Amino acid sequence: MPAAVTVGIDIGGTKMLGVVVDDAGTVLDDAREATPHRHGDDGRDLLPGPDEVMAAIASLAERLATRAEAGGARVEAVGVGLPGLVDDGGVLRFAPNLVHGRGLRVTDRLAERLPGRRVVADNDATCAAVGEWAFGAAARAEDAVIVTLGTGIGGGIILDGRVRRGANGFAGEIGHMVVDPNGPLCTCGKQGCWERFASGSGLARLAHQAALAGRLDAVVARAGGDPDAVRGEHVTAAAAAGDPGARAVVAELGWWLALGLANLANVLDPSVFVVGGGLMVAGELLLEPARQAFADMVEALEHRPDIAILPAILGERAGAIGAAVVAREDDRRRAGRG
Amino acid sequence: MPAAVTVGIDIGGTKMLGVVVDDAGTVLDDAREATPHRHGDDGRDLLPGPDEVMAAIASLAERLATRAEAGGARVEAVGVGLPGLVDDGGVLRFAPNLVHGRGLRVTDRLAERLPGRRVVADNDATCAAVGEWAFGAAARAEDAVIVTLGTGIGGGIILDGRVRRGANGFAGEIGHMVVDPNGPLCTCGKQGCWERFASGSGLARLAHQAALAGRLDAVVARAGGDPDAVRGEHVTAAAAAGDPGARAVVAELGWWLALGLANLANVLDPSVFVVGGGLMVAGELLLEPARQAFADMVEALEHRPDIAILPAILGERAGAIGAAVVAREDDRRRAGRG
Repeated sequence: MPAAVTVGIDIGGTKMLGVVVDDAGTVLDDAREATPHRHGDDGRDLLPGPDEVMAAIASLAERLATRAEAGGARVEAVGVGLPGLVDDGGVLRFAPNLVHGRGLRVTDRLAERLPGRRVVADNDATCAAVGEWAFGAAARAEDAVIVTLGTGIGGGIILDGRVRRGANGFAGEIGHMVVDPNGPLCTCGKQGCWERFASGSGLARLAHQAALAGRLDAVVARAGGDPDAVRGEHVTAAAAAGDPGARAVVAELGWWLALGLANLANVLDPSVFVVGGGLMVAGELLLEPARQAFADMVEALEHRPDIAILPAILGERAGAIGAAVVAREDDRRRAGRG
Repeated sequence: MPAAVTVGIDIGGTKMLGVVVDDAGTVLDDAREATPHRHGDDGRDLLPGPDEVMAAIASLAERLATRAEAGGARVEAVGVGLPGLVDDGGVLRFAPNLVHGRGLRVTDRLAERLPGRRVVADNDATCAAVGEWAFGAAARAEDAVIVTLGTGIGGGIILDGRVRRGANGFAGEIGHMVVDPNGPLCTCGKQGCWERFASGSGLARLAHQAALAGRLDAVVARAGGDPDAVRGEHVTAAAAAGDPGARAVVAELGWWLALGLANLANVLDPSVFVVGGGLMVAGELLLEPARQAFADMVEALEHRPDIAILPAILGERAGAIGAAVVAREDDRRRAGRG
């Protein structure tokens, strides 16, 4: 009997990353392509239409599936993570960075292009969380929260051993918890969302404040002498190199990270948080202050086991691996069948 | 075959309320007793020991069960909601307002006193949430959050049709989400927990501020002319009577309620919130401003069905009814067997 494998594809705004994984989560093959986009006459990106996007995704999936089958494996399913909301019926409801139009029947459309294959689609952040939960740092803990620190903050919630999507698939929008109603304006229109503080944009703001206050002079000097030129990357690099001012800013970021994690712990009571995303270049310089602050913030800490705060380990492949897991474990109620 | 019924007991700090319910959630009988406590020489309450508390609970349960059986019913189980954390093994880990001592094996101890009966114990707030979910306003919605506004804020989380307790049974401590790190000090030691703003103590603070600012003159006059004498009850009563200043304070409370509900919606994506507790004497004067503010605060509102915000309907019996539901549906992993 041939080994069962699953294809997982993670669709980002600029690139598509595909993997072939076995039942143990081992990546047996991978491939990447640019996400389709067009340039307008003025050089701006235009969103492509559904046919173009579906064809590109199906082509990458079929290439990986064919290679796996040539190697003697049996491809069980194809999972696709998309930057938008995919409902239980396999309809992409809302994907403002990927495709022109709304209401795309994405699993059916992909299944038509992948005859004989079962296709499951889900939100990309959910897939990344599932990947990190199933085969990453969360090690299939029954109750876990996966936190992705990028420009904003995304998340995935696992309770009683399954990812929880809520009534409409919007669960895990943890970055938009308001943690200070007088805080900075968020892209969502509210003030003081957690992702204004504990994300890449939060680091930029903290760094800018510290630079203006003269607490980052060495970093400012390296950025060319202009406090307004200091960016988050300068701070994480300087912190890694041992600069005390930069470390203090990263620790401040860790305090804000802890604040949101403690809120989530009080609501959800996970045994583990896994923290990933671009900001995790700061690593333990961020997580260790976060752990210390977190211990002061969680209710009844003395009455329960420690809650682990761990770095993600799958890196950029978390989403593709997770898409494969979602497809293999058929975690969505309805899959398209080719 | 005799009708199957379940006994549910809700243990509060001052009273114990018991019910007998059928499979449709109809309350067939009820009874109440004072919760055991002793007075010290100086008149202060002292916590009783485990034997005294267990005997009182078992006595109330047996009285209701015996009456139900005398009426021809078959008693399936006894559920007990306790003001503390009950772990999966039936151990009461932490009940500072009920019983002296820790680590009480509460389901086993009760089962010994209730021979032949299956006993299930759980946290009282969880039971109240389960009651309101199963036979109250939430109408068994797959994804719901039950919010109890008292002196603090308690909660219960239902996702995918089951109450979610988290890794250690602490899920639902929603009152301790920090919503303003510069806010007032909470009993938990943090600053700006949600329950400092949207609870009874939050109303008292808002009322006091409004009274000092001259925005509650009619209420102050009725409270004897002293702004410091204005309490939350004065405000809710005056609001019900139509006082504009009092209505503005209740609407402000509604804004804070909405802030926390929106945070929970972004994390959990329920289809319904049910709001109960003592503060709900304010009724729609509180909920309607909360609904309006909530609509401005939730992500992607235009992409999903409305999230209902409904008043609880079971009143003080929610906990006892919920304890019966937990016992009947055997929602805990381990029950004590008498």
